Amino acid sequence: MAKPLNIGLIGYGFMGKAHSNAYSQVNHFFDLAYRPVLKAICARSADQAQSFAAKWGYESIETDWKKLVARKDIDAVDICVPNNLHHNIALAAAKAGKMVLCEKPLSMDAKQGQKMVAAVEKAKVPNMVWYNYRRVPAVTLAKQLVDAGKLGRIFHYRAVFLQDWTISADLPQGGTALWRLDAKAAGSGVTGDLLAHCIDTAIWINGGIQSVSAMTETFIKERKHTLTGKVEKVGIDDACAFLARFDNGSLATFESTRYARGHKALYTFEVNGEKASLKWDLHDLHRLQYFEHGDEGRLRGWRSIHVTDHGGGHPYMDHWWVPGLQIGYEHSFIHQVADFLKSLETGKPAGPTFRDALETQKVCDAVLASARKKQWVKV
Amino acid sequence: MAKPLNIGLIGYGFMGKAHSNAYSQVNHFFDLAYRPVLKAICARSADQAQSFAAKWGYESIETDWKKLVARKDIDAVDICVPNNLHHNIALAAAKAGKMVLCEKPLSMDAKQGQKMVAAVEKAKVPNMVWYNYRRVPAVTLAKQLVDAGKLGRIFHYRAVFLQDWTISADLPQGGTALWRLDAKAAGSGVTGDLLAHCIDTAIWINGGIQSVSAMTETFIKERKHTLTGKVEKVGIDDACAFLARFDNGSLATFESTRYARGHKALYTFEVNGEKASLKWDLHDLHRLQYFEHGDEGRLRGWRSIHVTDHGGGHPYMDHWWVPGLQIGYEHSFIHQVADFLKSLETGKPAGPTFRDALETQKVCDAVLASARKKQWVKV
Amino acid sequence: MAKPLNIGLIGYGFMGKAHSNAYSQVNHFFDLAYRPVLKAICARSADQAQSFAAKWGYESIETDWKKLVARKDIDAVDICVPNNLHHNIALAAAKAGKMVLCEKPLSMDAKQGQKMVAAVEKAKVPNMVWYNYRRVPAVTLAKQLVDAGKLGRIFHYRAVFLQDWTISADLPQGGTALWRLDAKAAGSGVTGDLLAHCIDTAIWINGGIQSVSAMTETFIKERKHTLTGKVEKVGIDDACAFLARFDNGSLATFESTRYARGHKALYTFEVNGEKASLKWDLHDLHRLQYFEHGDEGRLRGWRSIHVTDHGGGHPYMDHWWVPGLQIGYEHSFIHQVADFLKSLETGKPAGPTFRDALETQKVCDAVLASARKKQWVKV
Amino acid sequence: MAKPLNIGLIGYGFMGKAHSNAYSQVNHFFDLAYRPVLKAICARSADQAQSFAAKWGYESIETDWKKLVARKDIDAVDICVPNNLHHNIALAAAKAGKMVLCEKPLSMDAKQGQKMVAAVEKAKVPNMVWYNYRRVPAVTLAKQLVDAGKLGRIFHYRAVFLQDWTISADLPQGGTALWRLDAKAAGSGVTGDLLAHCIDTAIWINGGIQSVSAMTETFIKERKHTLTGKVEKVGIDDACAFLARFDNGSLATFESTRYARGHKALYTFEVNGEKASLKWDLHDLHRLQYFEHGDEGRLRGWRSIHVTDHGGGHPYMDHWWVPGLQIGYEHSFIHQVADFLKSLETGKPAGPTFRDALETQKVCDAVLASARKKQWVKV
Repeated sequence: MAKPLNIGLIGYGFMGKAHSNAYSQVNHFFDLAYRPVLKAICARSADQAQSFAAKWGYESIETDWKKLVARKDIDAVDICVPNNLHHNIALAAAKAGKMVLCEKPLSMDAKQGQKMVAAVEKAKVPNMVWYNYRRVPAVTLAKQLVDAGKLGRIFHYRAVFLQDWTISADLPQGGTALWRLDAKAAGSGVTGDLLAHCIDTAIWINGGIQSVSAMTETFIKERKHTLTGKVEKVGIDDACAFLARFDNGSLATFESTRYARGHKALYTFEVNGEKASLKWDLHDLHRLQYFEHGDEGRLRGWRSIHVTDHGGGHPYMDHWWVPGLQIGYEHSFIHQVADFLKSLETGKPAGPTFRDALETQKVCDAVLASARKKQWVKV
Repeated sequence: MAKPLNIGLIGYGFMGKAHSNAYSQVNHFFDLAYRPVLKAICARSADQAQSFAAKWGYESIETDWKKLVARKDIDAVDICVPNNLHHNIALAAAKAGKMVLCEKPLSMDAKQGQKMVAAVEKAKVPNMVWYNYRRVPAVTLAKQLVDAGKLGRIFHYRAVFLQDWTISADLPQGGTALWRLDAKAAGSGVTGDLLAHCIDTAIWINGGIQSVSAMTETFIKERKHTLTGKVEKVGIDDACAFLARFDNGSLATFESTRYARGHKALYTFEVNGEKASLKWDLHDLHRLQYFEHGDEGRLRGWRSIHVTDHGGGHPYMDHWWVPGLQIGYEHSFIHQVADFLKSLETGKPAGPTFRDALETQKVCDAVLASARKKQWVKV
Repeated sequence: MAKPLNIGLIGYGFMGKAHSNAYSQVNHFFDLAYRPVLKAICARSADQAQSFAAKWGYESIETDWKKLVARKDIDAVDICVPNNLHHNIALAAAKAGKMVLCEKPLSMDAKQGQKMVAAVEKAKVPNMVWYNYRRVPAVTLAKQLVDAGKLGRIFHYRAVFLQDWTISADLPQGGTALWRLDAKAAGSGVTGDLLAHCIDTAIWINGGIQSVSAMTETFIKERKHTLTGKVEKVGIDDACAFLARFDNGSLATFESTRYARGHKALYTFEVNGEKASLKWDLHDLHRLQYFEHGDEGRLRGWRSIHVTDHGGGHPYMDHWWVPGLQIGYEHSFIHQVADFLKSLETGKPAGPTFRDALETQKVCDAVLASARKKQWVKV
Repeated sequence: MAKPLNIGLIGYGFMGKAHSNAYSQVNHFFDLAYRPVLKAICARSADQAQSFAAKWGYESIETDWKKLVARKDIDAVDICVPNNLHHNIALAAAKAGKMVLCEKPLSMDAKQGQKMVAAVEKAKVPNMVWYNYRRVPAVTLAKQLVDAGKLGRIFHYRAVFLQDWTISADLPQGGTALWRLDAKAAGSGVTGDLLAHCIDTAIWINGGIQSVSAMTETFIKERKHTLTGKVEKVGIDDACAFLARFDNGSLATFESTRYARGHKALYTFEVNGEKASLKWDLHDLHRLQYFEHGDEGRLRGWRSIHVTDHGGGHPYMDHWWVPGLQIGYEHSFIHQVADFLKSLETGKPAGPTFRDALETQKVCDAVLASARKKQWVKV
């Protein structure tokens, strides 16, 4: 019988839902030595906490995260609140000896992130950041192929994360629903929210980034603030694009925006190597596109790999349905929880750890600095 | 607080897993007056039942379906066993006053199906057949568009369900894993297994089928039988294609096979109407392709509708994630359970009922008869 | 210096243009021992003939095809007139010792076709029918792959040719522009016009067809006739679908219609073999989709082969541009002329000859008979 | 009868072929007041010139471009030689009063380009640069849509031109076939060869570029030189990416490389506007992808516009085949010649003129300077 791992979740938004779902589902599909127990949900509003607890089966609620962190019956604290709160909670949780799972991006900046890394490492507690896209099977497959040398020397990496949900000037900023538009809560706009995902995947697959040249733009300069009720200057970046050079000598372009009409969550990346190339697209996340130069000439073409096509060979997929039947977005979180629980058995950390995620934070800082200074910046 | 609905599940295979998942998930995403309680799982092997119960949280087990059906604490019996067992269980369950949820196809043939319909209707118990593809959001959207008259007069319907998993002659037939290849357990091959799905969707969207001309083929004539250990004649159809005429005057082609190399579960359908056409593909189930003739000429083109692109407008999708983030196969079952539970509130049946599913059975019978007689057969 | 081959073209419509273009272009891209000379164009209207001659550079005109056929300076007669005129012209041309190139379908029916075959074979004149799609490079590649055994045993063949240009009931029938809707001129509707293409390709790639079960429909029963000015019964088939069995044991479905909203010339075919599958689509004719089961499991996927991706390996493509730059529809005719001219050098006929095309005619006859009788018909 | 326009072509490579084809074809498909006459082809090798003349029907040859430019029977000089020769020929041709058609890029740099503009404008001779992709119908359609305001305010532009033909280190540089790899002949690598196309289209569609931040890379540092036989340093850029800001406030990313395995000529661009977005891909050049936010919510999706789907509405397409039948690469040149010939009738220049093309040259210069200096550069 699997051992219980008592979860204390802080936050009940989009990510609170995605994580709770992962905890509920993981033991149905993975054989593991541990099983998450939904011990407590924490929200400032008792009503919201109660309602969320009822829906997901949390055993108790808290309205003060400090109390949650202090509870003896909590093994792991899961941080699903706006970015500006990550640092303090993580430090307290680590100090209390809790495992810490933190939503991305790790922190408001690398300086904060450094302290968070120090805290969890000093406390020697398991820690992980929810860069969930690593565990989309097609993305994991991409990583495996690059690691196996199937692509040979890498020449190019390119990634975009395009959305269109903030085009309307009538959209306000700030508050529970729209804190991502409020620089005080989010730290940055698309850079921390979307590019952070792209950067995490890129570093994971293609290694470290040396230097960047970036530009950012805020298309809508002022928006009404939900909390103050006043029209205020928008402090976040609506769009950000940057050039980069990797340690391995490859070149990269990255771009993210919330002003790309027609794209809802178009996270795509492509890697071009000497022997093969691959690309992936979140809008059809169950496919990996792959081109192998070594194929017979007249039969060469981009292969559309449906990761369900072959029961035994695609990462995570033998835990799901029969060939041809696709999985969705939320499964990436289930995989991440599965790997985290396994890491407790093996003692081998499940990435990205806080330390791993700090690298992404450093790149984000460099990107924002480059955009500000209008010059190349070393990471 | 939602009222409990005690489920007794018979069978623990692929569908047992899919249904259990749906029961576990539905109240996390839908606000409903009822909530399924996993009361009992029934399997001939106590070990299998125990193991399944532990994984999914069933409260008890049974090894004889008759005992399960007789239990007072069971509200609904869910039949997930091979086709040849549907009839007897359904009759007993109805007689015991239980709601009956039955995997598709309803029965071995229309004659059996007729009795099952009579039984549930006499007992006045809610009943439903698991033609889950109706609840893929893109498919439901297709139904809504046709019903709303967006396509105008319908000229053509075409559907295929292509797989490739039985090409190897070394694959045996029969037994727990491969009962779908054993005519005694399955009744037919692709006709009942795959075409039944296509027919159910087609009737739902395009109305009744009048007559058919079919051909079937068994490419591998003999296979070792798992139960007898002997090489035995294969009794099922490996492939089946048929022409059809609908009540509304439209023409159709249907085809299914397990010998279409490269396709794992390629269920596609297309409807061509006077004003618009649409098509769907299970391999990318979160998309609907749509062409509207009324669009401005130079801008006309097939639209690739990602059903997550618009929070408010796509069936079921406002219960899930944010725009752009796709759902998968299992969600169709969750939607079906949600609708079933809602039907208990409203008293308005959630289709397909046994009576609805009988129509599909009649078409399957006609298809098999046509192939046997090599002539057109009226449904 | 290439030897002149004097062409006498009869007809100046869509096909007259496509053939003239092919004659004009072929020596620019292919090194050949012969070069077509545009000697004469024949049309009933002298004005039309003159205008066409001016545009394409024909040296002379005729208004009576019998005169053209009689001219000593004509080496090859090219028949681009409605189907009901093919027979008489071909017989006369053959008798006059001319090479005969005839638009498809060969004839109004197999009986006529038989006489035409007899005529050209008796006269021992080179002859060819313009089933141009054989020479789309991706289609030729498909043929090569099947012939090379890459697919192994063939299980399935399926083809459709879908259009939507006759949905409007206001479209008249008959006359120069719309003779394809007039049964007297065309013989049949989509069967001879579109399915004939599908059947020609199918026989070429997959061998002979044994038997068929077909249905046809005329959705718009009456249309104004351009020539008589009266509303007359429509005699052609607007849509036709049929099941077929090939000599090699494979099963097939074929369908064609002019009522599939959204499709302009969607000719697609797919072949499923034991080891591999392939499919093609006229709307993106420069691509072949190919799936090879022997690929490493986790990397298996449908390959989208852009036939320009590899200079040396794709049929005909080394005569054109650099990799990545696609060719279009008209190139299939240029390739066919190139092959015809080469056949004059080698003495080895370029298919499809009249005899080859007669096979397609026999299948068309069987299809129409089957639809009429509502029963399976042997070819 | 159309008036003759006597063409003198200098160069017989890939572009010489593409232009000759355009001259040969244009009057077959367009009704024009002028018709090109293939008067003379000039190449240093008399054999090559002779052979090319025989194939394409040039009436005469020259081996010295100065003689060609001096001939009285030449109306227009067409420059299809390496970039380092454009300037001198263009100046001489303009001085001789000839119309000048020049392959892209206009010149080695903006300084040269400026002189060329001055020369043709002083001589008042019609002039044009062969940025042919403007006349791919789907690209022209994109331009029309942006001009018509269908996209509203533009936020983003992104373009790539990816190839993979120089990955092998064994490929030599220089000489007739590989002058594009020789900095002395080409001026730059992908910047002038490929990005110049992207920039021309971008400026045409989206207006002027203000500033850029670029990086370039030469992956293979040394290659054997075809002319000297020695291994020499490679002077060109193998890859180049840059960020840009347009006059209209939109942001852009551009990238080109010859090291993107799997891509042969993947020129794609995308424009994101407030109301709509569009994208195009040279590998399927007959399609434009279009997303319109104003569409009914549940039916919104990217439209795949096949530019042949509607005879009357797509630029240039009514000159070609029937709906559904695609055209290819070379047609863009035919359209450009058609427009050039029309401009002689109307007196309204057909772009891009030398002056238009100079803008692209300035951006290329800024890009290369930015990469060299590693800083943002104003155009």
